[in-house]
Amino acid sequence: MHKNFKGIEKTVFGRGSFDQLDSILSEKRSDNNKFMLFVVDYYFKGKPLEKRIPVKPEDVIMFIDVDTHEPTTEQIDNIRDSVLSSKGLPAGVVGIGGGSIMDIAKAVSLMFTNEGSSTLYQGLNLIKKPGIYHLGVPTISGTGAEVSMTAVLTGPEKKLGLKCEWTVFNQVVLDPELIASVPRNWWFYTGMDTYIHCIESENGIYNNAYSHAYAEQSLKLCREIYSGENSGQTPENDDKLMVASLMGGLSLTYSEVGVCHALSYGLSKILGMRHCYANCVAFNHLGDYYNDGVKEFKDMVKKHKVDLPQNLSKDWTDEQINAMAKVTYNLPHMWNHALGTDWKEKITLKDMEGLFRRL
Amino acid sequence: MHKNFKGIEKTVFGRGSFDQLDSILSEKRSDNNKFMLFVVDYYFKGKPLEKRIPVKPEDVIMFIDVDTHEPTTEQIDNIRDSVLSSKGLPAGVVGIGGGSIMDIAKAVSLMFTNEGSSTLYQGLNLIKKPGIYHLGVPTISGTGAEVSMTAVLTGPEKKLGLKCEWTVFNQVVLDPELIASVPRNWWFYTGMDTYIHCIESENGIYNNAYSHAYAEQSLKLCREIYSGENSGQTPENDDKLMVASLMGGLSLTYSEVGVCHALSYGLSKILGMRHCYANCVAFNHLGDYYNDGVKEFKDMVKKHKVDLPQNLSKDWTDEQINAMAKVTYNLPHMWNHALGTDWKEKITLKDMEGLFRRL
Repeated sequence: MHKNFKGIEKTVFGRGSFDQLDSILSEKRSDNNKFMLFVVDYYFKGKPLEKRIPVKPEDVIMFIDVDTHEPTTEQIDNIRDSVLSSKGLPAGVVGIGGGSIMDIAKAVSLMFTNEGSSTLYQGLNLIKKPGIYHLGVPTISGTGAEVSMTAVLTGPEKKLGLKCEWTVFNQVVLDPELIASVPRNWWFYTGMDTYIHCIESENGIYNNAYSHAYAEQSLKLCREIYSGENSGQTPENDDKLMVASLMGGLSLTYSEVGVCHALSYGLSKILGMRHCYANCVAFNHLGDYYNDGVKEFKDMVKKHKVDLPQNLSKDWTDEQINAMAKVTYNLPHMWNHALGTDWKEKITLKDMEGLFRRL
Repeated sequence: MHKNFKGIEKTVFGRGSFDQLDSILSEKRSDNNKFMLFVVDYYFKGKPLEKRIPVKPEDVIMFIDVDTHEPTTEQIDNIRDSVLSSKGLPAGVVGIGGGSIMDIAKAVSLMFTNEGSSTLYQGLNLIKKPGIYHLGVPTISGTGAEVSMTAVLTGPEKKLGLKCEWTVFNQVVLDPELIASVPRNWWFYTGMDTYIHCIESENGIYNNAYSHAYAEQSLKLCREIYSGENSGQTPENDDKLMVASLMGGLSLTYSEVGVCHALSYGLSKILGMRHCYANCVAFNHLGDYYNDGVKEFKDMVKKHKVDLPQNLSKDWTDEQINAMAKVTYNLPHMWNHALGTDWKEKITLKDMEGLFRRL
């Protein structure tokens, strides 16, 4: 049984394409209670981009600080409830920001039409009804959240996505000008999320000609952006990074992520560590799973003088490490892909604790 | 103003995925008058694949001989009228075949809901209403018709596509096993359609980071399939060709085709020459536009001992050549891309006649 995956419905790509947002939204504004909900990274509050957002008097705009924590089920439920009770059902949700904002926009879109708490729907195909129209404008590239079938949420019990075909955006606007001002470290961590998606997608039992072709091209772009002689934050590389992120996301959609993401989920759930950063922290020590990839990753860390702390685990309690390992162990689809269907014979919970102690 | 393009809604990729067709269609069968219309390449009549098509008693299946001519507006109108008058509006249209069948399925889907002759809608965004559900199963890869926003039809006046976002398939099923039996020459001509899409997409003013990334990877795959040491019709290469076709199609969707397609349209419209073959006939003599591409193309022709006739133009009348040049001249979007907005200062109708005389 092969995956039948949903793609983004419509895609605009190009410098300055953010200015097409108004006309794109105008076709949708008459739906439901005829207003748009904008969820925007708080980073843009007071920045020039804020003035360019095509907000109409009837719209709701929320600036969300995503630096404090990753998107939570409670946060999604609260946004939905407050908008429904004050203004009713929006015509659509527009997310402007990085992976967290993309996930918030996708999750809120679904929760407007699915009753109860979002904790009820964490998992594959648990959502009952299509959400409302949702549009994503990435301002940080790398997570692939603009193309993925999942909206990852941290709930009281688990970090797991609302994953179904209706999660995928109806529209994305890919304007490379928007990612020009990403701070250096985050430019690196988020780009490495794409790199790691590809390495993990390629190294496992679900890899196939389709996921491979996307990973191969995305990796080529990552190398041009992060290791070639023309590497660095340039307009040309920003263009490439937006495409690499999309292609990396498509690769993993049709294959699967692996060991690094399994560990990273543990780090995020228990320590609140941000996803892309957690991936980098974990990947750095996974040479025995992804030898060439980790070597190349270390070269890129060095080249761009990125902060990547070591010996973090000395400050973690046994209880924390055990809790992280448990989160990690409960991601069988990732282990299945990375180590094979007999993965439980190859790695134990204890071994996973050992992996965390390396960090 | 950047293009806002519609992608395929859902995609299955993998060997044996054709067997998922029944379950995919089962979710759609209750729409409209609750039957499916299958349009299938006549090549499969009596072949093993025919028995595997999930046709129910209420369905209509048409085996269409696409060898006699390319899809015509009259043919599309007739299919629509005969089905509507005998059974009513289908729940969906399923196309199983090469590029011509893909275009027939896409065009018929649109014409079920748009009144009058399909000649009324040849062009960009002339279609008024979304068509019915349509699903494509390519059995020959290379044209990119499985992913494109157009359904190319030859009408009494012009060869031009029904081009709009609703043309794009709701679902494609990409099963590389289905292309294993494509005859050698056609395997080459259709694969070269992809190759030429990429070369043309790359060489023109509309090329951008998005179309380039797709072209680059598609070209890499084409080289593995047609020139590398492992080239040839193998299962691995069939997998790759299906992906290359998709990626080549995506590249041109977001950029544009050029000189070769402009000429090829003339050959098809006036002489009825099949699209992929016409592309090869023309591309072979376009070294002054696509120098490296044509060199590589010639090497591939040689390597696979493909029949590519020369000196065809000696049998064409001046009238025919003039008519072909006129068709070609009336494709300004292609010339615009290939030569720039001032293309009329660079090439005349007479020059285009000259290009045809080379063939």
